[in-house]
Amino acid sequence: MSQRLKLIIAYDGTPFAGWQSQSHRNTIQDHVERAFEHVVGKPVRVHGAGRTDAGVHALAQCAHADLPNGRLSAARWMEALNALLPPTIRILRCQSVSKNFHARISAKGKIYRYRIWVAPVLPPFEYHRAWHIPRPMDLQILKRAAKQFVGTHDFAGFAANRGKKEKSSVRTIYSVRIRREGPALTIEFDGGGFLYKMVRLIVGSLVNCALGKMRIEDVTVRLGSGQPGPARFAAPAEGLYLVRVRY
Amino acid sequence: MSQRLKLIIAYDGTPFAGWQSQSHRNTIQDHVERAFEHVVGKPVRVHGAGRTDAGVHALAQCAHADLPNGRLSAARWMEALNALLPPTIRILRCQSVSKNFHARISAKGKIYRYRIWVAPVLPPFEYHRAWHIPRPMDLQILKRAAKQFVGTHDFAGFAANRGKKEKSSVRTIYSVRIRREGPALTIEFDGGGFLYKMVRLIVGSLVNCALGKMRIEDVTVRLGSGQPGPARFAAPAEGLYLVRVRY
Repeated sequence: MSQRLKLIIAYDGTPFAGWQSQSHRNTIQDHVERAFEHVVGKPVRVHGAGRTDAGVHALAQCAHADLPNGRLSAARWMEALNALLPPTIRILRCQSVSKNFHARISAKGKIYRYRIWVAPVLPPFEYHRAWHIPRPMDLQILKRAAKQFVGTHDFAGFAANRGKKEKSSVRTIYSVRIRREGPALTIEFDGGGFLYKMVRLIVGSLVNCALGKMRIEDVTVRLGSGQPGPARFAAPAEGLYLVRVRY
Repeated sequence: MSQRLKLIIAYDGTPFAGWQSQSHRNTIQDHVERAFEHVVGKPVRVHGAGRTDAGVHALAQCAHADLPNGRLSAARWMEALNALLPPTIRILRCQSVSKNFHARISAKGKIYRYRIWVAPVLPPFEYHRAWHIPRPMDLQILKRAAKQFVGTHDFAGFAANRGKKEKSSVRTIYSVRIRREGPALTIEFDGGGFLYKMVRLIVGSLVNCALGKMRIEDVTVRLGSGQPGPARFAAPAEGLYLVRVRY
């Protein structure tokens, strides 16, 4: 018998090599698994809702793990994990869930936010937390270009090849919301699912349009083609935040 | 002939040993002086409005320096310094000023802000940027205790001994403003001047009152005495921000 725990995890992605376990063991998954193992005394597998790349942040990543029964309550697990994890990874919530819940398979969608700092100088407190664009951007063009991505499309033209072929590159984006507060510009994507590097490739194109380096029509053609195109520009990891996983 | 430059400098204090130049050369003053020297080819002294301790942040520290005339415009100096400085130190403004201006002597006052995060878990993005208090605090007591500090007092009971005696420990605080937004609590001090560690010692006492570890009357007595008391508790450096220097 075992107990399934659902974890809500926030992390500053800067010092880590992304979510997914790797041999050098400096990923968020590795750290959380090591913390569990420290208490349980044997390896524990942690299943995340999805991978985030090196440098990408999470306000509320979701994961689950199966633990030996009756060991600790969910509340005590949260305390124990936070005591063992580095301060740049925090368990925000921890609850017992049924075996029907699976962090990845049960997910209905995700919200990603991309932060851009549009000003000549990037404040020290935004370093590694936003993409610095030192030149003015045309916000109206950005909004027009962004609108096209809402809906169900074949996003093959906005995905990075991961080596293995995805079954389908059709995804649905429910909304793209753009907000500007002074120099801080955020682009928030609510979607059913996202391909590898999809948000960063979309943001890269949007910014190129807003800087006058690319025409909106080129974005339209690429989105309509459903084909991987030539080399594209991905926005840097440091501006990307996994905001929430919807179930 | 030389040109006097006034600099507005922001820094994330985390990786530095404070403002003031030291032999190991990892202070903010050292970094800015090195950047000037790199361009000018000889040592340049930078005069700050005041010291900040290791780990203390600045949103707008002020400093001045005298540079060989006609070398670069103020705008070009700002670009050159930012290109040479680490991204955790940024020059936000740079202007030519008259020789009558002195960053420290001309200062009329300073604003300091102290950030506290009152919640069981400190989010990763607040690490090194706020003091984490995991237990509930009595905000009404905090406000009552804080009110006493407004006005002109002998703050000897809220200063750390720096080895040398200050001429006078009488200072004036114009206002103490307390704001709470969810778990984020800020205490902002506007004053004519501050003694060494004065803000952190005051905040340490305020928090001790709000946590029920200290009585407001004890604070009153210490403030009224004008005497350095026994060991006191200073709030940690990571929550303190020099917000602005008034001229």
